[in-house]
Amino acid sequence: MTVNVGVIGTGMIGQDHIRRITRVLSGARVTAVADLDLDRAKSAADRAPGSRVHHSGLDLIADESVDAVVVCSWGPAHPEPVLACIEAGKPVFCEKPLATTEEACGQIVDAEVAAGRRLVTVGFMRRYDAGYRAMKQALSRGEIGTPLIMHSAHRNASVPGCVSSEMIIVDTCVHDIDIARWLLNAEVAAAGVVKPRRNRRAAEGLQDPLILLLEMSSGVLVDIEALINSGYGYDIRGEVVGETGTVELAETAAVLVKRDGGFGGRVPADWRERFARAYDAELQRWIDAVTAGAATGPSSWDGYAATAATSAGVRALHSAGWVEVSLRRRPDLYRAAPEDPGEG
Amino acid sequence: MTVNVGVIGTGMIGQDHIRRITRVLSGARVTAVADLDLDRAKSAADRAPGSRVHHSGLDLIADESVDAVVVCSWGPAHPEPVLACIEAGKPVFCEKPLATTEEACGQIVDAEVAAGRRLVTVGFMRRYDAGYRAMKQALSRGEIGTPLIMHSAHRNASVPGCVSSEMIIVDTCVHDIDIARWLLNAEVAAAGVVKPRRNRRAAEGLQDPLILLLEMSSGVLVDIEALINSGYGYDIRGEVVGETGTVELAETAAVLVKRDGGFGGRVPADWRERFARAYDAELQRWIDAVTAGAATGPSSWDGYAATAATSAGVRALHSAGWVEVSLRRRPDLYRAAPEDPGEG
Amino acid sequence: MTVNVGVIGTGMIGQDHIRRITRVLSGARVTAVADLDLDRAKSAADRAPGSRVHHSGLDLIADESVDAVVVCSWGPAHPEPVLACIEAGKPVFCEKPLATTEEACGQIVDAEVAAGRRLVTVGFMRRYDAGYRAMKQALSRGEIGTPLIMHSAHRNASVPGCVSSEMIIVDTCVHDIDIARWLLNAEVAAAGVVKPRRNRRAAEGLQDPLILLLEMSSGVLVDIEALINSGYGYDIRGEVVGETGTVELAETAAVLVKRDGGFGGRVPADWRERFARAYDAELQRWIDAVTAGAATGPSSWDGYAATAATSAGVRALHSAGWVEVSLRRRPDLYRAAPEDPGEG
Amino acid sequence: MTVNVGVIGTGMIGQDHIRRITRVLSGARVTAVADLDLDRAKSAADRAPGSRVHHSGLDLIADESVDAVVVCSWGPAHPEPVLACIEAGKPVFCEKPLATTEEACGQIVDAEVAAGRRLVTVGFMRRYDAGYRAMKQALSRGEIGTPLIMHSAHRNASVPGCVSSEMIIVDTCVHDIDIARWLLNAEVAAAGVVKPRRNRRAAEGLQDPLILLLEMSSGVLVDIEALINSGYGYDIRGEVVGETGTVELAETAAVLVKRDGGFGGRVPADWRERFARAYDAELQRWIDAVTAGAATGPSSWDGYAATAATSAGVRALHSAGWVEVSLRRRPDLYRAAPEDPGEG
Repeated sequence: MTVNVGVIGTGMIGQDHIRRITRVLSGARVTAVADLDLDRAKSAADRAPGSRVHHSGLDLIADESVDAVVVCSWGPAHPEPVLACIEAGKPVFCEKPLATTEEACGQIVDAEVAAGRRLVTVGFMRRYDAGYRAMKQALSRGEIGTPLIMHSAHRNASVPGCVSSEMIIVDTCVHDIDIARWLLNAEVAAAGVVKPRRNRRAAEGLQDPLILLLEMSSGVLVDIEALINSGYGYDIRGEVVGETGTVELAETAAVLVKRDGGFGGRVPADWRERFARAYDAELQRWIDAVTAGAATGPSSWDGYAATAATSAGVRALHSAGWVEVSLRRRPDLYRAAPEDPGEG
Repeated sequence: MTVNVGVIGTGMIGQDHIRRITRVLSGARVTAVADLDLDRAKSAADRAPGSRVHHSGLDLIADESVDAVVVCSWGPAHPEPVLACIEAGKPVFCEKPLATTEEACGQIVDAEVAAGRRLVTVGFMRRYDAGYRAMKQALSRGEIGTPLIMHSAHRNASVPGCVSSEMIIVDTCVHDIDIARWLLNAEVAAAGVVKPRRNRRAAEGLQDPLILLLEMSSGVLVDIEALINSGYGYDIRGEVVGETGTVELAETAAVLVKRDGGFGGRVPADWRERFARAYDAELQRWIDAVTAGAATGPSSWDGYAATAATSAGVRALHSAGWVEVSLRRRPDLYRAAPEDPGEG
Repeated sequence: MTVNVGVIGTGMIGQDHIRRITRVLSGARVTAVADLDLDRAKSAADRAPGSRVHHSGLDLIADESVDAVVVCSWGPAHPEPVLACIEAGKPVFCEKPLATTEEACGQIVDAEVAAGRRLVTVGFMRRYDAGYRAMKQALSRGEIGTPLIMHSAHRNASVPGCVSSEMIIVDTCVHDIDIARWLLNAEVAAAGVVKPRRNRRAAEGLQDPLILLLEMSSGVLVDIEALINSGYGYDIRGEVVGETGTVELAETAAVLVKRDGGFGGRVPADWRERFARAYDAELQRWIDAVTAGAATGPSSWDGYAATAATSAGVRALHSAGWVEVSLRRRPDLYRAAPEDPGEG
Repeated sequence: MTVNVGVIGTGMIGQDHIRRITRVLSGARVTAVADLDLDRAKSAADRAPGSRVHHSGLDLIADESVDAVVVCSWGPAHPEPVLACIEAGKPVFCEKPLATTEEACGQIVDAEVAAGRRLVTVGFMRRYDAGYRAMKQALSRGEIGTPLIMHSAHRNASVPGCVSSEMIIVDTCVHDIDIARWLLNAEVAAAGVVKPRRNRRAAEGLQDPLILLLEMSSGVLVDIEALINSGYGYDIRGEVVGETGTVELAETAAVLVKRDGGFGGRVPADWRERFARAYDAELQRWIDAVTAGAATGPSSWDGYAATAATSAGVRALHSAGWVEVSLRRRPDLYRAAPEDPGEG
């Protein structure tokens, strides 16, 4: 009953998932790894006893010892192994983004629809965070009425100098976009960008912070503040304003200290600290679903819709007004509302 | 040393100021009241022993028993008594707005400049709120670095059916505009409006909620969420995001109760509960300044700049993009930065 | 209608009350001051224009220009002027303690009962604090059911070296004792003291911190942590645990700042910062009551009962177990429950 | 490398650990279960595929397929299997209490010392809670100086009618006792009990709430409020007061909701909700240690010291004053301070 997992891409997140499957989660083991950088692959394999090293993702997928695949390579390299998994009939967990273009995402959707069953899960881990799940529950229970506005803030302490303004939308805001779709049970209809005063701590030319505005298909307005050189920590904030109330993420500090004339608590240092539990829950849920022969979590459709929204956001970054998002028809395979993380 | 105050306009806020001067504050008494509605004026005078009733504001201003004037009539009626006070050399505290048009505000500014000294104080009471003052102090001390973004939310539990979308900007957001100018020490350069899903609890045709965006002269971006039928209470929120940190208003509940599976605190019911202390402090400070022969608080210039910004906001409400705010040159009389509430 | 107030004792708190009456509150003025230290009295009188200086409190009380008296001398000197005020039929506001011994308090009670009306108000200002008032309201509304336990913590940043262990009970815990009596509507039946590890920041021999336990007449258990060299600030905490819930004082910070990996708010520096509003409200209420010819606030009985409890606490400090408090019968004059601060 | 675990006792907590090992944690599987109630054992075994059922704990321990043992029977039945595990040289995780008497605990300590190595881990899961771990870290870093006082509150929503006053100390307060020993790095020197007003919601004769006072060997005073029919939820509170500051557990709510005039968050319903993560971490850590051939977590000495303290507490419940705790000499095997949960 143990799921044999192959991991493609052994960079930071790939190594972390290998550690997670090997030492934290139940019901799976890593039996194969692949990376263009063979030394890195071998080093990663050393930490998953009994695992083989493959020269390519396609070889790994073809390996009979592999039941299911985790794709952790960089974004542009995602479609090839995901499509191969669909063809091989093997469940695949793909880190976000599913693909970097709407076209590539659409091909994956088409392939999965042709295969007739969901095999792809996309790594939008926030859906497994205790805070967002409690928000979802409050919304579902009608505690605040129909949503009208969502405020989101995505603040990193700092980022490497190579990050571009476009990447703020594609790599940072994409999490806020997916969680908004999921919480609000609606698609992004249009995107706009507002540019505040630039942070002098950001690299030359980087539009940090920026505010990404989303108009959802339901009319709900989402504003996403992305501030990737906040200086003070990794701070993820979210609030949904409804017709009769609001729900917002609480601070996550486990203790409060009083000293030196004040009281206070900790802000997480980075995404690992903030979302460690969500990553664990996300992958455990996927392993459980693979074991049960079921689909779970964010789907190819979710991956497609998120990329469509980030693409509109990037266009909006370079234009004055709103950019509309035009989605293809949602196939019946994904008829479940985006609110369902696959938990049955 | 007691200041003899005349109050023009004896509606809700006028009556409240009469009560405040008579029963709460130190150093002043109400010696005259005026209202177009004479019965209401007489009724108000009954609660200020020894005060006279005048038929018109101009008569009241001319009354020798009146040292200083509080103007609480409705907005369009503000310029006449304010200009008369300037001409008479009597200090005047005018409820917001100073005037409903930029032109009328400009005439007041011109008259005061011609008089050569500040006589006018505008009733932007938030500057006297403990929360905003602590924000201002944190900013002044450099605790969060240079401001980049300000988030403001202005939520009323409910409003009468007669409120229009324009009034949300002119009467509601004007407070957020003034406090942004004061906290950020900058003028509004442009305004835009974003329209979220409408609250079905709002009157037909009312754009509730709306988001007013301001671009400040410093490049700081201010977003103001106005939700005037929040359903749950009067909730004023504010956060300034700086280059190295943030500062935000804390909840105001004095106690937390645990019961029935949860913990919680109170949200104020209305502006009276939320800003009672600020109104007291604002008017006490004005009385003290009048006694000392000094100017204090938000000036005619602040009143003018706020009206210029709300006018741009109203135009933005009916257009697609940003509307620029074009201010006249600031006279030397108001050379102090808007950050100074007059406290020396 | 202005109350002419004479102030006896012009030390720190006396000067503060003079400032308050002269510059903050409505309806009163200081017309006379008295202090054994004549220079200090004259200096204080300079800040209350038109006030006279008396050589003794008794002269001040006899002054026809004095309608009501505020007693701010040190504790042992309180009974003489308070008894003289009762005899003169002049309302008197006496800072805590009413008197330093149960006997002296009893004489005041007897005198007031003989006079047939309440003339004495004791300065337990916490009853006017927004936090404690909200606690009282939650209790009165039955939000947490019948009280079972009350936790109180009284922490000063630091104290002068002259403070003794007995004074921690008599001068510090007395506030917690009065507020417990008022919140719980019960008398102190017995007191005990528990001695934690000593703070090395405290003076040699000082039992800081100490925990004062009170058994109330209703069976409710009150534990009061007194820590007078907390190092970090002036922190007043309180929680009442009831049969179905709890109510506790919230933090008082007006803003929260995020920086340097954490979020936090301010703890008050001292009692002036923490209870400034309560002092204002307490004295305004007293002025209003004097104007109306009514009694208000903590009574002689409250002063007596608090001193009886602190006396038991001091005995408990020097013994191993519980020390019972034996109160005289409560005269009908004070038949109102201690819960009523006199607010109607 | 998979640890084969035998579980003795398949009641509620036993079933929960079987589920945890089988479906949540990494590196172990359940290969045998034992229970006096064979039907219950079989039912439990059904949920751990491949596991055998034994008639007795001793048979299970003798089973060669069992590498390590988890003891979840009721307290009085703990010593037999724990001693047998020591004799068999198999690591054993024993739910608290290690044994119900100091004597029985002492025998286990003796046996383990004779065996020359630590084989026993006691299930004090709070040491693995994020909140307590952050408190421990704050203390270790000197953020609040030397501890002086610890306040602890242990509140259950309600308990079955069969719970006795003694059980409040033995089964409820024992968690607070262990965590105080661990956080403060000190032993309990004496215990006392204070009895507040009884909760009418508690069963006849039950002393609910009660306050257990502990004097630690370092002089630190610990007060533990046990309220086992709080009515409102499962609320675990803790604060350590040091010479320069304090550290306290924060609320655990993941979101805050605003509605109906207030804001608020959730209080956990029960210990499962509050400590689910701590149970997971505790057992994963034990599995990892067993795999590595190392000892971890609370030791036999911790189990012994906790039972010595609860025994004193029970005696104090029935007497007026303090009851001293007299511990045997700590064997070198347990020379590590109780602060170390075994994490290296």
